[in-house]
Amino acid sequence: MSDVAVIGLGAMGTALAEAFLNKGHSVTVWNRSPAKAQVLAAKGAVVAASLEDAVRSSQLIMVCLLVYDTVHEALAAAQEALSGRTLVNLTNGTPEQARAMSDWAVGHGANYIDGGIMAVPPMIGGQHALILYSGSRQAFDTHAGQLDALGTSMYLGEDAGLAPLYDISLLAGMYGLFAGVLQALSLTGAVGIRAGEFMPLLMSWLNAMQGALPKWAERIDSDDHTSAVVSNLGMQADAYVNLIDASTAAGISTELVLPMQDLMRRGVAAGKANADLSSLVGLLQLSKQATRD
Amino acid sequence: MSDVAVIGLGAMGTALAEAFLNKGHSVTVWNRSPAKAQVLAAKGAVVAASLEDAVRSSQLIMVCLLVYDTVHEALAAAQEALSGRTLVNLTNGTPEQARAMSDWAVGHGANYIDGGIMAVPPMIGGQHALILYSGSRQAFDTHAGQLDALGTSMYLGEDAGLAPLYDISLLAGMYGLFAGVLQALSLTGAVGIRAGEFMPLLMSWLNAMQGALPKWAERIDSDDHTSAVVSNLGMQADAYVNLIDASTAAGISTELVLPMQDLMRRGVAAGKANADLSSLVGLLQLSKQATRD
Ligand SMILES: NC(=O)c1ccc[n+]([C@@H]2O[C@H](COP(=O)([O-])OP(=O)(O)OC[C@H]3O[C@@H](n4cnc5c(N)ncnc54)[C@H](OP(=O)(O)O)[C@@H]3O)[C@@H](O)[C@H]2O)c1
Ligand SMILES: NC(=O)c1ccc[n+]([C@@H]2O[C@H](COP(=O)([O-])OP(=O)(O)OC[C@H]3O[C@@H](n4cnc5c(N)ncnc54)[C@H](OP(=O)(O)O)[C@@H]3O)[C@@H](O)[C@H]2O)c1
Repeated sequence: MSDVAVIGLGAMGTALAEAFLNKGHSVTVWNRSPAKAQVLAAKGAVVAASLEDAVRSSQLIMVCLLVYDTVHEALAAAQEALSGRTLVNLTNGTPEQARAMSDWAVGHGANYIDGGIMAVPPMIGGQHALILYSGSRQAFDTHAGQLDALGTSMYLGEDAGLAPLYDISLLAGMYGLFAGVLQALSLTGAVGIRAGEFMPLLMSWLNAMQGALPKWAERIDSDDHTSAVVSNLGMQADAYVNLIDASTAAGISTELVLPMQDLMRRGVAAGKANADLSSLVGLLQLSKQATRD
Repeated sequence: MSDVAVIGLGAMGTALAEAFLNKGHSVTVWNRSPAKAQVLAAKGAVVAASLEDAVRSSQLIMVCLLVYDTVHEALAAAQEALSGRTLVNLTNGTPEQARAMSDWAVGHGANYIDGGIMAVPPMIGGQHALILYSGSRQAFDTHAGQLDALGTSMYLGEDAGLAPLYDISLLAGMYGLFAGVLQALSLTGAVGIRAGEFMPLLMSWLNAMQGALPKWAERIDSDDHTSAVVSNLGMQADAYVNLIDASTAAGISTELVLPMQDLMRRGVAAGKANADLSSLVGLLQLSKQATRD
């Protein structure tokens, strides 16, 4: 028996197994392509001959594959072995997928926890790696000490869909940031400014502008987007045209930046010209609008 | 005579005039709608009866209107008065607009400086307000002491288009960030999570993910997007589907997030599945591709 089994040894699964080993836990590992297990074997992991053997090795089963379909595919072979164990699925998925997986696992007698890893592999094992969990509270409490080997654990509630919901919402923020950075570096790169020269300025600007976000949260929670506005949507929509025009003039695709222009214009058309940008959240929530209309 | 004239008293122009007054400079102000000048008059500003009077009041003329068209429109009446003075235009515009404005102003005997304000009005006058300048170096040096009243000045070069280029590139980053935050808050809001509860988590996550950006800069400058990749584009493109699916399931518009999916997929199709996300910059630079093809 091992303390924990890690199934899936991609970039992330390998980091998870290493973090457990580093904290002194005994670890059994399995990966579809066996070669990836060898590095971990050299560090003391037991390599399971089959996925089912991996499941039978431990009370705590960590799964980190590419997408949910691959998890279903892989675990189907070992479903009889799950009973009485705790399955922690760290594969990225939707809340709906997590709930369905929870039903399936519980149906096979397992405790189910879904997880969202808010970190890149090199961060795993350090306190800045945030891992979100939701699902069986009892199973989480039982294994919390082990899970803390991976980083800072945050338990969100019994609904298995909560961790993926938070995960995906955080990723939405990150990909927006990354899309903006891609546009910025394309623009500066087009006129020969080195990315290494521009990046510190961009990072300090992004930090400064994050300063607006606590106020956004207040506005959204109180549904007051118009008091004490320092950058009104109308002005911003007008200035945004320059971003589109300058991109076009520089031969940079506007594909990433056009939808925001469209949204801002719809906001102005909807009477939000004097409101803050935070007011646009309402325009994205289609189902809410359907309810309101 | 005043030390400086401020033309345009919107949210930003008012903040500029106040910062000059606070640092002990004498200020003449003008605004199309005269009412906005009264607050500043009470603080010691001289209110000019016409834009031309404002221009004639000072050696240093700061203009901060909505868009360039309004600057052309407004200054046309006072063009004879510009000769020998320094015109600093802080209105948001494109590099092309700035260069044309520079030609026009120099043609009327003025020194021209274009500026980009990287701050919101409440920050003006503090060191965290970054103001980018480009254009006449000599005029900038002459007035640097005065300009420092507004925040931290950064001079970028003689080409008047440089300040707007940097400005727009920084705004591109910011609007990407803001678009991502709008999506994130729409998702969490749809299931009743308060923005004030989610925002601290989102901000700390965005900060953590900014940690990837110095490496992006290195990759872009060295055109090496494949060595030591910890989150490959193929995996990210697969996980991104969950962001789209979860948004749709929650009744949230995918308009802001779809273009990034399309770009990532094109990246994978172009053979970048094992590369870092930074490699997508190349797909946005259309003119470069045209040159390469
Ligand atoms: N890397 C990150 O920065 C990061 C951050 C947060 C979350 N995540 C999430 O963590 C999960 C894994 O990411 P990763 O970076 O480790 O990806 P990766 O390096 O591409 O590894 C993918 C893993 O999935 C396995 N796999 C794929 N299809 C399979 C199938 N049909 N049956 C069995 N195994 C299969 C692969 O096995 P083979 O080796 O046999 O191909 C490999 O172990 C993803 O859901 C990702 O979204 C990653
Ligand atoms: N606020 C910010 O957060 C911020 C940050 C950085 C840069 N900026 C830039 O600063 C500039 C001004 O922004 P703001 O926030 O001050 O906007 P604002 O509050 O909407 O004020 C707009 C100003 O432009 C004037 N104006 C508009 N059309 C005019 C015309 N045809 N002729 C003469 N004057 C005209 C307005 O005069 P009336 O009062 O008569 O309407 C007002 O003084 C914009 O280019 C903006 O992009 C703003």
